[in-house]
Amino acid sequence: MAKFRFQRKMIEPKIQFVGHQFMDTPAIQLFKYSEPGIEEIVSEGNLSKIFENLNYSKNFNFWINVHGVHDIELIKRLIDHFDLDKMVVQDIVDTTQRPKVEVSSDMVFFSVKSLLPQNGLNIESEQISFILKENILLSFQEKKGDHFEYIRGRLREGKGLVRKSGADYLLYLLLDAITDNYYTSLNGLESRLNELPQKIMDDPKPEQIFKLEHIKQSLFNLRKAINPLKEAIIFTEKGPSAHIHSDVIPFFADLKDQLWQLTDETDLSIHRSEGLTNLFFSYQGHRMNEVMKVLTIVTSLFIPLSFLAGVYGMNFKFMPELDWNYGYPAVLALMALLALGMLLFFKQKKWL
Amino acid sequence: MAKFRFQRKMIEPKIQFVGHQFMDTPAIQLFKYSEPGIEEIVSEGNLSKIFENLNYSKNFNFWINVHGVHDIELIKRLIDHFDLDKMVVQDIVDTTQRPKVEVSSDMVFFSVKSLLPQNGLNIESEQISFILKENILLSFQEKKGDHFEYIRGRLREGKGLVRKSGADYLLYLLLDAITDNYYTSLNGLESRLNELPQKIMDDPKPEQIFKLEHIKQSLFNLRKAINPLKEAIIFTEKGPSAHIHSDVIPFFADLKDQLWQLTDETDLSIHRSEGLTNLFFSYQGHRMNEVMKVLTIVTSLFIPLSFLAGVYGMNFKFMPELDWNYGYPAVLALMALLALGMLLFFKQKKWL
Amino acid sequence: MAKFRFQRKMIEPKIQFVGHQFMDTPAIQLFKYSEPGIEEIVSEGNLSKIFENLNYSKNFNFWINVHGVHDIELIKRLIDHFDLDKMVVQDIVDTTQRPKVEVSSDMVFFSVKSLLPQNGLNIESEQISFILKENILLSFQEKKGDHFEYIRGRLREGKGLVRKSGADYLLYLLLDAITDNYYTSLNGLESRLNELPQKIMDDPKPEQIFKLEHIKQSLFNLRKAINPLKEAIIFTEKGPSAHIHSDVIPFFADLKDQLWQLTDETDLSIHRSEGLTNLFFSYQGHRMNEVMKVLTIVTSLFIPLSFLAGVYGMNFKFMPELDWNYGYPAVLALMALLALGMLLFFKQKKWL
Amino acid sequence: MAKFRFQRKMIEPKIQFVGHQFMDTPAIQLFKYSEPGIEEIVSEGNLSKIFENLNYSKNFNFWINVHGVHDIELIKRLIDHFDLDKMVVQDIVDTTQRPKVEVSSDMVFFSVKSLLPQNGLNIESEQISFILKENILLSFQEKKGDHFEYIRGRLREGKGLVRKSGADYLLYLLLDAITDNYYTSLNGLESRLNELPQKIMDDPKPEQIFKLEHIKQSLFNLRKAINPLKEAIIFTEKGPSAHIHSDVIPFFADLKDQLWQLTDETDLSIHRSEGLTNLFFSYQGHRMNEVMKVLTIVTSLFIPLSFLAGVYGMNFKFMPELDWNYGYPAVLALMALLALGMLLFFKQKKWL
Amino acid sequence: MAKFRFQRKMIEPKIQFVGHQFMDTPAIQLFKYSEPGIEEIVSEGNLSKIFENLNYSKNFNFWINVHGVHDIELIKRLIDHFDLDKMVVQDIVDTTQRPKVEVSSDMVFFSVKSLLPQNGLNIESEQISFILKENILLSFQEKKGDHFEYIRGRLREGKGLVRKSGADYLLYLLLDAITDNYYTSLNGLESRLNELPQKIMDDPKPEQIFKLEHIKQSLFNLRKAINPLKEAIIFTEKGPSAHIHSDVIPFFADLKDQLWQLTDETDLSIHRSEGLTNLFFSYQGHRMNEVMKVLTIVTSLFIPLSFLAGVYGMNFKFMPELDWNYGYPAVLALMALLALGMLLFFKQKKWL
Ligand SMILES: [Mg+2]
Ligand SMILES: [Mg+2]
Ligand SMILES: [Mg+2]
Ligand SMILES: [Mg+2]
Ligand SMILES: [Mg+2]
Ligand SMILES: [Mg+2]
Ligand SMILES: [Mg+2]
Ligand SMILES: [Mg+2]
Ligand SMILES: [Mg+2]
Ligand SMILES: [Mg+2]
Ligand SMILES: [Mg+2]
Ligand SMILES: [Mg+2]
Ligand SMILES: [Mg+2]
Ligand SMILES: [Mg+2]
Ligand SMILES: [Mg+2]
Ligand SMILES: [Mg+2]
Ligand SMILES: [Mg+2]
Ligand SMILES: [Mg+2]
Ligand SMILES: [Mg+2]
Ligand SMILES: [Mg+2]
Ligand SMILES: [Mg+2]
Ligand SMILES: [Mg+2]
Ligand SMILES: [Mg+2]
Ligand SMILES: [Mg+2]
Ligand SMILES: [Mg+2]
Ligand SMILES: [Mg+2]
Ligand SMILES: [Mg+2]
Ligand SMILES: [Mg+2]
Ligand SMILES: [Mg+2]
Ligand SMILES: [Mg+2]
Ligand SMILES: [Mg+2]
Repeated sequence: MAKFRFQRKMIEPKIQFVGHQFMDTPAIQLFKYSEPGIEEIVSEGNLSKIFENLNYSKNFNFWINVHGVHDIELIKRLIDHFDLDKMVVQDIVDTTQRPKVEVSSDMVFFSVKSLLPQNGLNIESEQISFILKENILLSFQEKKGDHFEYIRGRLREGKGLVRKSGADYLLYLLLDAITDNYYTSLNGLESRLNELPQKIMDDPKPEQIFKLEHIKQSLFNLRKAINPLKEAIIFTEKGPSAHIHSDVIPFFADLKDQLWQLTDETDLSIHRSEGLTNLFFSYQGHRMNEVMKVLTIVTSLFIPLSFLAGVYGMNFKFMPELDWNYGYPAVLALMALLALGMLLFFKQKKWL
Repeated sequence: MAKFRFQRKMIEPKIQFVGHQFMDTPAIQLFKYSEPGIEEIVSEGNLSKIFENLNYSKNFNFWINVHGVHDIELIKRLIDHFDLDKMVVQDIVDTTQRPKVEVSSDMVFFSVKSLLPQNGLNIESEQISFILKENILLSFQEKKGDHFEYIRGRLREGKGLVRKSGADYLLYLLLDAITDNYYTSLNGLESRLNELPQKIMDDPKPEQIFKLEHIKQSLFNLRKAINPLKEAIIFTEKGPSAHIHSDVIPFFADLKDQLWQLTDETDLSIHRSEGLTNLFFSYQGHRMNEVMKVLTIVTSLFIPLSFLAGVYGMNFKFMPELDWNYGYPAVLALMALLALGMLLFFKQKKWL
Repeated sequence: MAKFRFQRKMIEPKIQFVGHQFMDTPAIQLFKYSEPGIEEIVSEGNLSKIFENLNYSKNFNFWINVHGVHDIELIKRLIDHFDLDKMVVQDIVDTTQRPKVEVSSDMVFFSVKSLLPQNGLNIESEQISFILKENILLSFQEKKGDHFEYIRGRLREGKGLVRKSGADYLLYLLLDAITDNYYTSLNGLESRLNELPQKIMDDPKPEQIFKLEHIKQSLFNLRKAINPLKEAIIFTEKGPSAHIHSDVIPFFADLKDQLWQLTDETDLSIHRSEGLTNLFFSYQGHRMNEVMKVLTIVTSLFIPLSFLAGVYGMNFKFMPELDWNYGYPAVLALMALLALGMLLFFKQKKWL
Repeated sequence: MAKFRFQRKMIEPKIQFVGHQFMDTPAIQLFKYSEPGIEEIVSEGNLSKIFENLNYSKNFNFWINVHGVHDIELIKRLIDHFDLDKMVVQDIVDTTQRPKVEVSSDMVFFSVKSLLPQNGLNIESEQISFILKENILLSFQEKKGDHFEYIRGRLREGKGLVRKSGADYLLYLLLDAITDNYYTSLNGLESRLNELPQKIMDDPKPEQIFKLEHIKQSLFNLRKAINPLKEAIIFTEKGPSAHIHSDVIPFFADLKDQLWQLTDETDLSIHRSEGLTNLFFSYQGHRMNEVMKVLTIVTSLFIPLSFLAGVYGMNFKFMPELDWNYGYPAVLALMALLALGMLLFFKQKKWL
Repeated sequence: MAKFRFQRKMIEPKIQFVGHQFMDTPAIQLFKYSEPGIEEIVSEGNLSKIFENLNYSKNFNFWINVHGVHDIELIKRLIDHFDLDKMVVQDIVDTTQRPKVEVSSDMVFFSVKSLLPQNGLNIESEQISFILKENILLSFQEKKGDHFEYIRGRLREGKGLVRKSGADYLLYLLLDAITDNYYTSLNGLESRLNELPQKIMDDPKPEQIFKLEHIKQSLFNLRKAINPLKEAIIFTEKGPSAHIHSDVIPFFADLKDQLWQLTDETDLSIHRSEGLTNLFFSYQGHRMNEVMKVLTIVTSLFIPLSFLAGVYGMNFKFMPELDWNYGYPAVLALMALLALGMLLFFKQKKWL
């Protein structure tokens, strides 16, 4: 089944990476952009190279994306460099956490689960954390897989609002891309669900209940990922701040609407999956009824006839019928009559 | 099953139409009215013709209805012309959204789902958006189907309160017409539900569980459409504004009551449909019991008799009964006695 | 099943009667009373006769009861005569509404459902509306059936507190009579529920699930009627007003307690009815088990014996047993042994 | 089943006793105590005797306990004597009410349900009302049964805090004794529940579902009694008053914790009872499977063999096998082989 | 099943130990530490020895851990020594309580359940209470089992933040260790749950429903322990105090997140266990279907053939077929044809 949780260990006092992935070196990517242009620096685990090229200025927006969160020292240095609260490091490297938002005067911190349907029913889960501090956006991805290539393309080509807007708008775009993945996951589960009624009608094997429960479990997992994100985004309704400006708030409000819509859809699918359980058991019971009807018809038809044959197979000396010339055809006729009566009885019961 | 959702795609930075319908040209309809008279202009996609005939004045009410929301440029121009916030365009053209209301000092924005039962069990869903700005009402319909012809008739003929009242009262009338469609949808589903008990009693086929789950799913869909609309209309309880005047508020309050009544009714129907599942399984089990009783009675009746016949069909040299004169009738009498005993046993068990 | 809802039609701009009943003339009844005495005027649809005898004065209480709410003009005139908000007329004549309370400085408006169990399981529902304006109480009953004759008797005879108290106390008495009918309805449903366990144990026919689901549905309907009334009466906790005085508030508080108690009882009955479904299916399964046991015992007992008889019924030339003198009794003894073994096996399985 | 509700009748204007018990004379018991000593007066329905011995003083605590609440005049006189609001009389004598608390500047009024498990599964319910007015505590018990003898003993012997503390502490002790009875009731139900799994495994008779549903119903009844009491006690969190002093509040807080714990336990038991329903149906289905396996094995084993015997029992003139010397043993060997094959097939299916 | 509750007795006025454990002497352990060093004193029930070595000073942190809570006098003396409210003693010694927090200006009091999975499915529950008063932490453990050895090690070796931080940080570490045990318990239950689907598919015995319900019950117990702790820790969100300083609050916030995550996980597992019930019944029904199919196929195949053999086993004088030369092979061929037809019928029904 789609599993989102990893093993958790006690974390104290050294912050520890909690998760599965382990890569040799994290990849760091810096985008420095404003409306007229964009600079892009990529480095394998070498923060100094990034810092050298940063040249911080109020006139640009900065997006630093880190792939791989197991190198705690690197993340600490990054957090230090931007004068952020060190407590946040634990939240970034613990990839087993519940999604959450934390707002301080210093920054806005988001930790969300990105879901991507793999082949079949499995949904891969990745934790992505965001720190927004005025014109700087830091993002931390658990894995090297890529959810944001489309947005990088638009940044590079200067298409759309993205280069004209601040780092807060970029954060919105990234969260929106994650939300789109939720829709993709839900659509995948729904199309699996849509195949089931026909399969159940064709052959109500218990394997189909297994599949159904698997899908239901994934729907609950989906709900578990969406719900806290929805709760988190509601904070933007409190009004603009130094980090999220008033012109970007409507975009976040739209995101919240989408997530609300998603939980509604997920709930409906869960209800549907419960209905499919009823469908399964009704077809299983129907199968049993069919089998029993065949057994009952065949047995009820032939057992009385066999009895009759048995009677005239008895070896009594004195059995007058046996000596009649038309005894045999008479018995055959009687048997035919009996069979006909039984068939009419079954017809009337609507078993035939 | 009745499905209300469409495919959603990433929307940035160009606003994109999200939905199924695609028509060549949207139809625009302008009503300019006051108590004494009414003017009506219709145009196929030509906004300029509408604007030329508008001649805005505080002394009239204006209703502009747009059929088809795929021509984003046209909608943008319309929004621009009335100095409204451009953010609203996205909400109008995304027909996959959850119903909602947004109130600003500028305007009131409603996005609702209109449901119409088609032939059979399918309920067609259409998104309709409303913008109310003082004496101007803009409405945007996804499809060319018509929910409001009755209200247009009353406008033209000047019947009722509609020409004597403001654009806020017209908005109420339109939302009320949509609510009436919800009742029609629910009534349709309920009459389908009402047919089921008799059908289940006649023949508990699994197809009936399929139908039942289909109806239940549609009831959940109905609930999903009604609930956010109810929540949305509650905003009018905050008191009158420049857009909705105090004399129209009681009409909105009545609408809220109707929607509340609707969710109550829908809940009851959902509970009823759950009861019908129990009914189905009890009849299916009853069928099985009936089949098994017939099998058991026939088998239990004839198998001992057949055994007896078999005994006297054995070819032992020394079997004294076979030589008795009354051996045969004695065995026949014994068989009759045995059968009678069995029948009495079944009678006592109330299986006959 | 007990149904409380009627067809709803679009209502604009003329207020329309929404409901089933249609009588030629509504009956109007005026009570004018104070501690020392009471005047009673009855009129068939003639409001003028009522108004002539009214002689309004602060020193009396007035109760005007209207039977039949289809004569909208009459109701409008009555509302007009007491200078009440016309909006309320729609709420009086729409008998399909959810129960509610509306409080303004002008008046208190209540619309409630009165339930009365008819013969069998059906519960008849009637909407009754109340308007309380200082010392005037107006009540509007959908049907001519009578729920309040006991209270009229006390008014006429001057028994109890009713003539000593205001119109607010009279309103309490009327609502309390309606609440007593709820108890009667619930008791009726509960006594139907109490009969079911014995019936299910005697004969688990699916008709009993049908009855059970019918009762459950009626319990949900009861809950649906009680719940909004309870919510409505809570408004009295806000403190005394010109219409409801502080000395009558404790009576309303007691009413609320009773309604709370009622929803608790109804919930318990719903839980019980769900338990009875389990009971039914356990008895149905038990029946099936019984039938199958008989089948299995009879079949398993005689089929091996029949086989043995069949063996010695074969016509092989060379079958030494057939020629033995004690072949026949030996086979009979073997058969008896086999049967005994089978019976012991069933005994050990606790099937006998 | 354990039933807590009685018939309710319209109550106006004379307050009426609502309940089952009817005793000739209520018993009244007065305790007047302070740290150094205690006075105790008992009277059968003679209030004057109680009032004569009262000698009210700020320096003592007074506890008047009344057994039997059908003598409304007596209760009215008692309420009058202490200048309390007459409205409370109705709440004392109506023993069908929901538990509640009412706080005024005058007094604190509690009405609670005391539950006591009787023999078997029945839980007897009694309403007990308390009025606390500074140093005076009045208590009204529906029945003569005794829940408080242990506390009276401690009062008489001056053990513990009770004589050193005020009437508020005594109220706490009485409510705590009632809460202990809830624990006893729950423990009784739980031990009944604990016996069921073994019984179900031994013999899944439908009588066990009947017992199970009975227990579940009693658990819901328990929950219904506890919940409003918990809500009621929360009022003490608002802070000390003239009736409940700050030093006693922690005791009430502890009571609330216990009731919370109780609802948690009750919920767990309800969940467990739902699990036992699953257990029952799985064992019932298992039984059926066992029966069907025996039937299938016996039938499938002997029916083909019987057929073979039947073939060689046919009377055709020309059947060469019948004339063979080893025809009979060959057929017997074939039969043994067939039976062996069948047994192996069942073995492989794990039915043996 | 995993049981967390013990017998409760009336507790007044002497505080009584409520629980199972009874040890001869409680063990007391004192840690006095600051960044540079640590002192450790252990005593068997001798408080004086602890007090002698205490030498209270603002410059150190003190942790006194008591194993065994049945020696009420000892606990009272300890509470007295630090001038704490005596009411807390009852909460410490009553080990049947619901987890809770109580905050006063004097101290912060926590009472929590520590869960530890034992061998198999049983989860052992222990109550642990904490009192935090500025730089002093008192902890009371019900049993001698040890949850905190890892933390003691870090204290002794001065590793991590623990010696550099205050007593509030130590409290966080202890609560975090308890939370880790919750994870361990949940993981244990989940791995038991994960084994079930395969077992059910292999052999749907009712013992597996028994195991499943056992696990589900333990999951509910887990939820019952976690939920109030989560509610309790939320109090730290109110801001720093004399007892919990602002630098430690984020650690408590993280704890709350973990507990929230835990209830989410537990809910998911409960949902999964409900899905496994469906799986079980589908496999049980499948088994039954399989058994019935074998019975029906064998019976339907051979019963008509046996009948045919029976016909030609009759002893009528005049049966022309018996005299034909090819009568016997013709009947055998007819039998083969009949059998083939049946097999084709079963093939078409997909029973073979
Ligand atoms: Mg929702
Ligand atoms: Mg929903
Ligand atoms: Mg859900
Ligand atoms: Mg849901
Ligand atoms: Mg459902
Ligand atoms: Mg829903
Ligand atoms: Mg409702
Ligand atoms: Mg409802
Ligand atoms: Mg509802
Ligand atoms: Mg519902
Ligand atoms: Mg239900
Ligand atoms: Mg309901
Ligand atoms: Mg309830
Ligand atoms: Mg309730
Ligand atoms: Mg309740
Ligand atoms: Mg309920
Ligand atoms: Mg309840
Ligand atoms: Mg329920
Ligand atoms: Mg239930
Ligand atoms: Mg609870
Ligand atoms: Mg709980
Ligand atoms: Mg519960
Ligand atoms: Mg409950
Ligand atoms: Mg629970
Ligand atoms: Mg459950
Ligand atoms: Mg949760
Ligand atoms: Mg959850
Ligand atoms: Mg839960
Ligand atoms: Mg849950
Ligand atoms: Mg969940
Ligand atoms: Mg579920």
